Amino acid sequence: MRTQLARIKKDIETLAQFNSTPGEGLTRLSYTMEYKQAQEYVIHEMKQAGLSVRIDPAGNTIGRWDGTEPDAAPVMSGSHLDSVPHGGIFDGISGVITALEAARVVSSEGMRFVRPIEVIVFVEEEGGGRFRSGLFGSRALAGKITRNMVREIVDARGISIAKAMEDFGLDPDKIEEAAMEPASIHAFIELHIEQGPVLDENNVPLGIVTAIFGIEEGTVTLSGVSGHAGAIPMALRHDPMTATANMIMGINQIAKSSGTKDAVGTVGLVQAYPGVINIIPDNVVFTYDVRDTDNDRHQRMLSEIKEMVARVAGEYGVKEDITVNLNSPAVRLNERVIAIMEDIAKEKGLSAQSIVSGAGHDAMVMPAISEHVNMIFARSKGGHSHRPDERTEFEDLQAGSELLLETITRLANE
Amino acid sequence: MRTQLARIKKDIETLAQFNSTPGEGLTRLSYTMEYKQAQEYVIHEMKQAGLSVRIDPAGNTIGRWDGTEPDAAPVMSGSHLDSVPHGGIFDGISGVITALEAARVVSSEGMRFVRPIEVIVFVEEEGGGRFRSGLFGSRALAGKITRNMVREIVDARGISIAKAMEDFGLDPDKIEEAAMEPASIHAFIELHIEQGPVLDENNVPLGIVTAIFGIEEGTVTLSGVSGHAGAIPMALRHDPMTATANMIMGINQIAKSSGTKDAVGTVGLVQAYPGVINIIPDNVVFTYDVRDTDNDRHQRMLSEIKEMVARVAGEYGVKEDITVNLNSPAVRLNERVIAIMEDIAKEKGLSAQSIVSGAGHDAMVMPAISEHVNMIFARSKGGHSHRPDERTEFEDLQAGSELLLETITRLANE
Repeated sequence: MRTQLARIKKDIETLAQFNSTPGEGLTRLSYTMEYKQAQEYVIHEMKQAGLSVRIDPAGNTIGRWDGTEPDAAPVMSGSHLDSVPHGGIFDGISGVITALEAARVVSSEGMRFVRPIEVIVFVEEEGGGRFRSGLFGSRALAGKITRNMVREIVDARGISIAKAMEDFGLDPDKIEEAAMEPASIHAFIELHIEQGPVLDENNVPLGIVTAIFGIEEGTVTLSGVSGHAGAIPMALRHDPMTATANMIMGINQIAKSSGTKDAVGTVGLVQAYPGVINIIPDNVVFTYDVRDTDNDRHQRMLSEIKEMVARVAGEYGVKEDITVNLNSPAVRLNERVIAIMEDIAKEKGLSAQSIVSGAGHDAMVMPAISEHVNMIFARSKGGHSHRPDERTEFEDLQAGSELLLETITRLANE
Repeated sequence: MRTQLARIKKDIETLAQFNSTPGEGLTRLSYTMEYKQAQEYVIHEMKQAGLSVRIDPAGNTIGRWDGTEPDAAPVMSGSHLDSVPHGGIFDGISGVITALEAARVVSSEGMRFVRPIEVIVFVEEEGGGRFRSGLFGSRALAGKITRNMVREIVDARGISIAKAMEDFGLDPDKIEEAAMEPASIHAFIELHIEQGPVLDENNVPLGIVTAIFGIEEGTVTLSGVSGHAGAIPMALRHDPMTATANMIMGINQIAKSSGTKDAVGTVGLVQAYPGVINIIPDNVVFTYDVRDTDNDRHQRMLSEIKEMVARVAGEYGVKEDITVNLNSPAVRLNERVIAIMEDIAKEKGLSAQSIVSGAGHDAMVMPAISEHVNMIFARSKGGHSHRPDERTEFEDLQAGSELLLETITRLANE
């Protein structure tokens, strides 16, 4: 292969060190010191490979290898460096360093194409990590983040993403300048670890992604009436905790009864206030994450959940408030590029299969500014992700980088 | 009246200042700096009133007015100075300062009885506050706290109550020396705010308590299998969050269907780990608080809950672990002293009614070492407690202190 396993291994191992929870998985939240260190390493490696580097107003990092036609829309590849708390060292990072490795090969072989090649590090992809609003960097690129939004999105300690950006040396008031025009990117290809067990179970190192699930993530806040656990009879309570339990059961039931295994509903976070053993809470906050491959079915499921939440809140006499943190429709990836990737895999003897993505990715947002959006999955051991034991073999990443390199090469000359 | 409203008001207002969350309710957790300041104020006032003061190995503070028979079992009164987080300034404090005020009257009038009079400040009553194990000081007095237990009870940051005691200047290895013999206290009378709406709704300032609910508080930990919210089909999940929701509904249902309004079941705290919007949690921890006035019915309800938890855990394929933090049977208060208090109220024109206590109190533990255990409730506005807006009128506290003074006076000469 033209890509080098040793460089991929070194990148992964170096980036794994920039971590606020060593020994307890990788925690690298956006706009933190660890994030800055990881970003600086990648910038250094981009420059070593002869790329010119810019940081956009959102904090996305872009390395560029110029083409022969300076105004041609680039072929872009990359992913993210931020992690969930106590996550793994491959999620996101794999897509950045396989794109970086492809660019190193292009540079070291002195290849020059009609179109520029760009390697991108999207900022704040996880959302679940620090701010509860994912795909931030790619949404900024797609013109979907406004100046007001960056002041409204806050982390668990109430720090807005605008404040975090300022502390990181960015000007949040310029966020809208990150937006790119429709079709200003010729193609965007993102490699990512699978985050599910399919490739591992089939013993296939690579997946060529055909579709990404639609996702809605939101936060439900229920306000009831607090009181001492011993002094308020059951019949007189307006208890947001029992209402929450009823709603969590409801979300589970609605997802299960949608008639397809693609539909999933998850509650990952719940918090009661004041959160004391002998006090009926006055407020409970919980999140939901609802996904499906079919947009109509997804929307029906979401409507059903919202009706259920309103109905249950009424039954318990509590006030409900729903904030949608992320709504991203299901995406069909570009069929022509899928066919190109399948050809390359066959030619180069890279074992790959078709797959759908249940997880959300920056690639979901990119169709707004690019006609050719595609993804490659690398096999993940046991399908684990967002966990310290997340593991992808370096050989599989190299195979993925090779497929990425060949795909970029073909698209950059059309 | 012989008690003075101005002193009661000054005590409440001074003690309200020793608070780690000014402007957001009273937070004074046991063995903290704020706690020390409150304790020192009360010790100063006890000494001003001519009481001799000792601190027992648990950290309970006791002021004593000697009787004519030095070995006679004392008549004791008091409550606690610790609060829940963001609680009110009356819960517990009212019982300490009304007992203190009664002692001031005894002292200033130069009264001397056969029995000593003691004013006690129990440490760590709340449990819900810092450590999830309430009635700590009174249980130490009753010989129910062992050296091992103080090392096992930890707060949210993993600090054991033993460590907190050490930092406070106590020797946790001596905790068992706090234990008193059965019948070593002649009578224990605790005044407390009601924490329910009965007195306020009936417009009666005082309650003479006839019984205290049985209480069990515990923590349930469920361990399932984590995974990415988009990658694990519903049918393959071992999701402790949905299992928790099912159990919270179950606790609610079991309490409601027990056939009495006295039975209550509350979940005040729930925490999912890692607690991220797009991750199926691997662990969920929640607390329960289950109370009833009838011990048999209470035990049946608890058995039913534990069977339900085991059954639901099995259905969801998650592992369950239940830790009982507190189990305190229902208590009938002393009928002879109830009759004495009713007589006093009639004689002195103090408006009072019979009432039961849904909340737990140090008085629940005291029958182990005292034959005459009784409580007086002072009316609480709207029945609110454990909240910043908790409010009891100073006039009601004075009336309560007066009833306390007369009751102590009669019991101290028998």
